[in-house]
Amino acid sequence: MHILVTGAAGFIGSHTVLELIEANKGYTVFCVDNCSNAVADSNGNAICLNRVSQIVNKPIPFKNLDLCDGSALEPIFKEQKFDAVIHLSALKSVAESIAEPLEYYSNNILGCLNLVKMCLKYNVTNFVFSSSATVYGPPEELPITEKSQTGKGITNPYGQTKYMSEQIMMDVAKANPNWNLIILRYFNPVGAHKSGLIGEDPKGTPNNLMPYVSQVAVGKLEVLTIHGDTFDTIDGTGVRDFIHVVDLAKGHVQALERFKNPIETEIYNLGTGVGYSVKQMVEAFEKVTGRKIPTKIGEARKGDVASVFCDPKLAEEQLGWKAELGLEDMCRDLWNWQTKNPKGFM
Amino acid sequence: MHILVTGAAGFIGSHTVLELIEANKGYTVFCVDNCSNAVADSNGNAICLNRVSQIVNKPIPFKNLDLCDGSALEPIFKEQKFDAVIHLSALKSVAESIAEPLEYYSNNILGCLNLVKMCLKYNVTNFVFSSSATVYGPPEELPITEKSQTGKGITNPYGQTKYMSEQIMMDVAKANPNWNLIILRYFNPVGAHKSGLIGEDPKGTPNNLMPYVSQVAVGKLEVLTIHGDTFDTIDGTGVRDFIHVVDLAKGHVQALERFKNPIETEIYNLGTGVGYSVKQMVEAFEKVTGRKIPTKIGEARKGDVASVFCDPKLAEEQLGWKAELGLEDMCRDLWNWQTKNPKGFM
Repeated sequence: MHILVTGAAGFIGSHTVLELIEANKGYTVFCVDNCSNAVADSNGNAICLNRVSQIVNKPIPFKNLDLCDGSALEPIFKEQKFDAVIHLSALKSVAESIAEPLEYYSNNILGCLNLVKMCLKYNVTNFVFSSSATVYGPPEELPITEKSQTGKGITNPYGQTKYMSEQIMMDVAKANPNWNLIILRYFNPVGAHKSGLIGEDPKGTPNNLMPYVSQVAVGKLEVLTIHGDTFDTIDGTGVRDFIHVVDLAKGHVQALERFKNPIETEIYNLGTGVGYSVKQMVEAFEKVTGRKIPTKIGEARKGDVASVFCDPKLAEEQLGWKAELGLEDMCRDLWNWQTKNPKGFM
Repeated sequence: MHILVTGAAGFIGSHTVLELIEANKGYTVFCVDNCSNAVADSNGNAICLNRVSQIVNKPIPFKNLDLCDGSALEPIFKEQKFDAVIHLSALKSVAESIAEPLEYYSNNILGCLNLVKMCLKYNVTNFVFSSSATVYGPPEELPITEKSQTGKGITNPYGQTKYMSEQIMMDVAKANPNWNLIILRYFNPVGAHKSGLIGEDPKGTPNNLMPYVSQVAVGKLEVLTIHGDTFDTIDGTGVRDFIHVVDLAKGHVQALERFKNPIETEIYNLGTGVGYSVKQMVEAFEKVTGRKIPTKIGEARKGDVASVFCDPKLAEEQLGWKAELGLEDMCRDLWNWQTKNPKGFM
């Protein structure tokens, strides 16, 4: 199977490309990314994919292009005969999306529309879409199952673009019965590949907890602000479903296996099903690394809820996939990446 | 005030342009439309706008362009100094949207994004968006107020594009506090201007009830199929909130008046607040026209609900607007248009 991976130079993208190749199931990949959020070398190639290439000891076909440019995408579809698409590309900062909503809607929706258009034109009918737990909005029930309500109370444009993209692709799949669509709703990916060659490399100050923690540990940042400690949780800090990025990446490999037979649209939560609090994460990180993380308590962020974690049973039953790596692995691999690459891919 | 009207050559667009000019409140208009759904003359001008020009005895500035072509829009924004935009342009067939979802999402969302981009770039901060009762999905309460839930159970991509466009514009307005956004949610516009020079001119077989009825009356179609007569309504047929298109058009004039002072985003239902059943509409039409409309009962359409009507109180209180024309006016004016233009604008 020949797979187009969009957003391949991202945190999840690079790990997914690696797992696809290492799965030894005959997957070949073609990677695209506009590197708006990734470091490129002097040839315009994404450094993280060069690293993947180093790990697997194979070249990784890559094209630096923007999905919003429909004409850039067409030659790729003409040349390559894709059997499936894994669509990961998107702007992903919640805070930035609130400040620059048009940028987020334009980029994430237009990219999705252009890609779907090419798939329809070149008869690529197997599609994996990278969605997010944010589509559930503030959960009305825990754990969140794939049948939990979506779309209600989403408080930021980033989450809306994921919700809208899901809707667009589900309607396209409904109108084109030969389409096989799998939507993967990610919970909170953390960690890094055990090689320490690839990992999360946020631009500027990290928006997410664990990269922030590891940058404090390495001395790049001074103190971790914990946003709110009066939630109704084990220790008052927010609880989330953190999942090792390598487990998440493997979920994509298992999703592709579903395309061996025709399917209706399928939706899967990718999480561990276990929630850990911010404080628990920090403690686990301190234990694994032996470093002390200075913290202070700040105000809860608008729209943040106490607890979010999923029921991952469906993915286990249907995809034969479940998260295998634990909290210690997440912390150890993150720290390995951080210490080996204190400046990220720079 | 200089107003850009998109989708100006449509049924609602042409009536809105007419009311804006006839309001004598100093509004000047600039019209754009790609005429994908309107008849153009040999110069590429929309015939319905030529007719408006004839009624008001003034030229109507018009440009045949597609909002999906961002570069076509820019020169207009550069040349004209718009004070406000009324964005009506969209593909609007529910059935077609189910068959061709990508077409609908691309056209309606991309058009909206391009237009908003231009408004931000050229600092046009007053925006009226043409939305629809379909954003409410199957109503959980009647009458529908502006606070009724939206987004849940919308069964077609057309309705989704309206819901998504609302969301996009509300987020843009939130991020740009100088923006003044008014969302108008239309119920079921029918009728025509009393001159009989402009009216609804559907391509092919009409999707909506009243154009179908009038085409049966004029002998173009043989028999009206009533979709379901076992709903829980006065006579078993579906009940909707039909509103005279001239009343609806006047709602836009009143909306513009709100821009004299800065506002937060405002949302208004434009309907009469009174529901009539399909059978009642047919009977009223027969009474006014003296024509017998042959009907037969067909299956209810998937997703159709028994009753949809709104509470229009908010528009009355805040906009000083309410529907003034009744069922008889709707039928009489539709029939006047139909008999004067049996082939529409052809």
